[in-house]
Amino acid sequence: MVRRSGRRPGNQDTRQSILESARTVFAERGFDKASIRAIAAGAEVDPALVHHYFGTKEKLFLACMNMPLNPGELVPKALAGPREEAGERLVRTVLTVWDSPAGATAVALMRSAMSNEWTARLMREFVVTQILRRAVAQLGIDEKEAATRSALVATQIAGLAVVRHVIKVEPVASAPVEQLVAAVGPNVQRYLTGDLPGVF
Amino acid sequence: MVRRSGRRPGNQDTRQSILESARTVFAERGFDKASIRAIAAGAEVDPALVHHYFGTKEKLFLACMNMPLNPGELVPKALAGPREEAGERLVRTVLTVWDSPAGATAVALMRSAMSNEWTARLMREFVVTQILRRAVAQLGIDEKEAATRSALVATQIAGLAVVRHVIKVEPVASAPVEQLVAAVGPNVQRYLTGDLPGVF
Repeated sequence: MVRRSGRRPGNQDTRQSILESARTVFAERGFDKASIRAIAAGAEVDPALVHHYFGTKEKLFLACMNMPLNPGELVPKALAGPREEAGERLVRTVLTVWDSPAGATAVALMRSAMSNEWTARLMREFVVTQILRRAVAQLGIDEKEAATRSALVATQIAGLAVVRHVIKVEPVASAPVEQLVAAVGPNVQRYLTGDLPGVF
Repeated sequence: MVRRSGRRPGNQDTRQSILESARTVFAERGFDKASIRAIAAGAEVDPALVHHYFGTKEKLFLACMNMPLNPGELVPKALAGPREEAGERLVRTVLTVWDSPAGATAVALMRSAMSNEWTARLMREFVVTQILRRAVAQLGIDEKEAATRSALVATQIAGLAVVRHVIKVEPVASAPVEQLVAAVGPNVQRYLTGDLPGVF
């Protein structure tokens, strides 16, 4: 027996056209300047249909990244708690996510961002607007320092992903999560809240 | 007028066969266990010919990575000087190399390592045997801690490359070298020589 979901799947061609147009518009204009109107125009559909299929602009963005996780839920949870342990909690969260089934998608996305300029742009928009911006706001980081601190955090987190999951250098590739949290957490903490003489 | 080099270029097909065999053998067995004999056998040539065209196993390895730089010269220079500034000097060296014309090759190689399992293996062998092993020896890092410390350094350096040159997150993408040295150097230093409770 074929199971049917309660909701109609909608026209797959229309969904696909909207997703393709969204990828183009997000990559060209960035997340902030991308409009549902422009995405709808690119797909030759009514803007109301975009909202109908995907809800908010943010949800559409997650859908066109094939992103099975919602940073809007994940980031606040990862960073809740004492400010001076935010680095460790952030590292613990990303390591746990990458080791989960959903993590495979994130790693695949990163691989693809390396070899494809457009995926790289989408990836950058995703990291900056969906993850780093939320983290900075939640930790109350000085606005003048926020972009630099969060890009520095990105260097450590991206490199951890590359070495653990892509190039697989031992012992980092198979180290237990808590050992990496102890090793990498304080370095991320310094980027988030530490003194950075010579930078600011 | 066509210029001729003083040295005969050798048979290009033979060179290519040797390079292809070398890539296979280095990726399958790793640098240490790869033998010139096995590489020669794979290319169906005499081992003496491999030495004749490429010199040492190390030079052959650099040749099959298309690596325009020699870490055997670069690493000792980067790390010479006070031990407590090794992190900063290492970061300064890699940033300077990546910004140089030769750096484009290194970045291209890293991109390719992301999407190709075999290039990833060669990359890992290169990073571990040609860069990290030398750094660890020169800094006199405890043998029991060397692999972990150097893989942690690799997470930071790889991530710096990804964020600055591939995903290009600002302000790291266009920050002056010395600002990044001040920001990232101390974190690399902690991995190299700092106390890492919870790790060792």
